[in-house]
Amino acid sequence: MNAQTTMKPYVIGLDLGGTNSVFGIVDARGEIKATTAIKTGGYEKVEDYVKASVDALQVIIDQVGGIDTIKAMGIGAPNGNYYNGTIEFAPNLPWATNGIVPLAQLFSDALGVPVALTNDANAAALGEMIYGVARGMKNFIVITLGTGVGSGIVVNGQLLYGHDGFAGELGHVTMVRENGRSCGCGRTGCLEAYCSATGVARTAREMLAKTDRPSLLREMNPEDITSLDVSIAASKGDEMAKEIYEFTGKMLGEACADFTAFSSPEAYIFFGGMVKAGDLIMEPIKRAYNEHVMNIFKGKAQFLVSGLDGASAAVLGASAIGWEIQ
Amino acid sequence: MNAQTTMKPYVIGLDLGGTNSVFGIVDARGEIKATTAIKTGGYEKVEDYVKASVDALQVIIDQVGGIDTIKAMGIGAPNGNYYNGTIEFAPNLPWATNGIVPLAQLFSDALGVPVALTNDANAAALGEMIYGVARGMKNFIVITLGTGVGSGIVVNGQLLYGHDGFAGELGHVTMVRENGRSCGCGRTGCLEAYCSATGVARTAREMLAKTDRPSLLREMNPEDITSLDVSIAASKGDEMAKEIYEFTGKMLGEACADFTAFSSPEAYIFFGGMVKAGDLIMEPIKRAYNEHVMNIFKGKAQFLVSGLDGASAAVLGASAIGWEIQ
Repeated sequence: MNAQTTMKPYVIGLDLGGTNSVFGIVDARGEIKATTAIKTGGYEKVEDYVKASVDALQVIIDQVGGIDTIKAMGIGAPNGNYYNGTIEFAPNLPWATNGIVPLAQLFSDALGVPVALTNDANAAALGEMIYGVARGMKNFIVITLGTGVGSGIVVNGQLLYGHDGFAGELGHVTMVRENGRSCGCGRTGCLEAYCSATGVARTAREMLAKTDRPSLLREMNPEDITSLDVSIAASKGDEMAKEIYEFTGKMLGEACADFTAFSSPEAYIFFGGMVKAGDLIMEPIKRAYNEHVMNIFKGKAQFLVSGLDGASAAVLGASAIGWEIQ
Repeated sequence: MNAQTTMKPYVIGLDLGGTNSVFGIVDARGEIKATTAIKTGGYEKVEDYVKASVDALQVIIDQVGGIDTIKAMGIGAPNGNYYNGTIEFAPNLPWATNGIVPLAQLFSDALGVPVALTNDANAAALGEMIYGVARGMKNFIVITLGTGVGSGIVVNGQLLYGHDGFAGELGHVTMVRENGRSCGCGRTGCLEAYCSATGVARTAREMLAKTDRPSLLREMNPEDITSLDVSIAASKGDEMAKEIYEFTGKMLGEACADFTAFSSPEAYIFFGGMVKAGDLIMEPIKRAYNEHVMNIFKGKAQFLVSGLDGASAAVLGASAIGWEIQ
C-alpha cells in the first residue's frame, strides 16, 4: 500500500441504475462506510443530475472525514464506456438517451478526485474479482440477470473492453435466428429477450396464452406477472412455472456453451435479482451447458452465484473501478 | 534486439497439418530461408514422427549454419495446447488420436532448443500480428476457413488461451439449434459444419438434391464437388453456386456479429483456402454482419483477408510462436 492509499482510505462507488443511483463510500476491504441515494431519472440535463448527486454525496463524504479521505470514484452504469468515461445512448436514462455524456469528467470536475466509469456488468465482474467468489481467478465471466442480461468478461486477469470499450454485450448474442422475440436493442432473438427478468415474465405470458393448462400464475393479471411471481409459483410446485425456469436456464446454458468456445473461462458467475431463484435457474443452466459444450471443455467450468451481498454488490462493484485507477 | 537474438537469427516454424508437415527456417523479418516437408500421417508412434521430422530438418538446419543459429521452434497444430505444449485427441493425426502427446517436449529434447506449440488458428493470428495485416492491432479475430473453421482471438494484444489453453474454438459455436448438421466434433449445428470448405460442398449437395434447378455443378458427381468447384461455377455466373456462397457468407457474418458482442475486435481477418473465393464470400459476410451487429458496433470492424502469402503463411504463423518464447 503506497503513501497515497494510506492517506486516502476510501473510494466512492456509484451504482447508476435506471431507477435509483446508489452511492457508497467503501474502504479497501470492501466495507461500506456510508451510503446515500437519489432518483436517477428526475433530471433532464446531466448537469442537474450531477449537482443533485454531489449534494447528496457531500453529507456522507463529511461523515467519513471530508473529500481528502477519498482516493477516487468508480461508476457502474448502463452503456458506460471505460475508455472515454462516457455514457452513450442509454435508452433508460433521460439525460443520456440521445447522445454521449462525459459523466466521469463531470463528477471529477465537481468533486476534485479521479473518476472511472464502466458498464454495470463490468463493475460486477471487478467486484467479484476483488471482493467476491472470483478472487484469484484470471478467466471468468459474470452474467447479470436483471431487467436486462449483461456480462463482464475477464481474460488473463483483465476486464475485456475490446477495441471501442463496449465488449461484453453477451445479452445480445442471437439465440433464436428465426421469428425471435423483439429486443430492446432494436434487433430480434437476443439472449436478453428471453433470459432477463422481463424475458421470464414474457415467457410466462406466452405459455399462459398458448395453452389451457392450469397454473397458479392464472390467478394474476398476465401483464402484472414478474419473474419473482414465477419463482414463487415454482417453489409451490407449479408445473408451468417450473417449465418457464427450465426453458430460461436451458437457453442460458446453451449460450454459455458458446461463450466457452470463445474464451474458455474457469467459472460463470451469475449476479442479479433472478439469481435468487437458486437451483430453479442454476440446475437447468448447468444441465444444458454440459449437454451442449464441446467435449474438450466438459466438466471444467464452475457455475457460481455472486458471493457479494445483494444490496451492496453493485456499489462494491462500482467502487472496484475506483481502486483500479492508477 | 538483445544479444541472444543477434546470435541466433532464426526460428523453425512447423505447420503441422492433417496431410503434410511443412517446416521453414524463418528470420526476424519473416523471410523463409529454407523449407522442407514430410507426410504427417505415415507414423503410428509420435516418436517415429519426430525422428523423421528431425532427419528432414537437419538438412535445412545445416543449410543456414547449424543448430546454433536457431533460437527456438514454433508449432501450429490441430488441437494444440499452448499451456502444456501438447496435442490432445486430434482426430486427424494417427499418432495423436486417442491421447495427449507432449510434442513440444519431444522436439525440444531432440533438437536442444526451446519449443512452443499452439493450435493452427492461434499461430495464424500471431503470424498476422507479427508479419501480416494485423500489425499494430490489439484486438482482432482471425478466422481460418479450410477443412474446418478455426479461430485465433487477440485481446489487449495477447492471444486468448482461456483457463485451459483451448479458448478460440469459434468453429464450434452453435448456429443452427434445431435439426442442425452433424459436426466432426460430435455435436450438431456448429458453424464449421456449414462454413468450412467441406461445409460448402455439403451445402452444394443439399441444394442440388432439393431442387431441379439447372447448375453447372450438375455436371459433376455430387460426392466429388469441392468448395473450389463451387467457386469456379460462381465465377462463370452460375446462380446456384452464387447462392451457396451467399448462404455461407451470411452465416459467417451473423456469427461475427455475435463474436463482436463478446470481444468487440477492430478487425476480422479471414485466412485459408476458401478465402481465394474473394468477394464471393467476403461481400455476403460484410452484408450479414452489418445487418445483424448491434447498433453501437455498426461500421466499426474491418473485414480483411490474410496479408500473408498463402503457401508460407502457416509456417510464418507457426514460427511466430517461436519468437514469443522468452
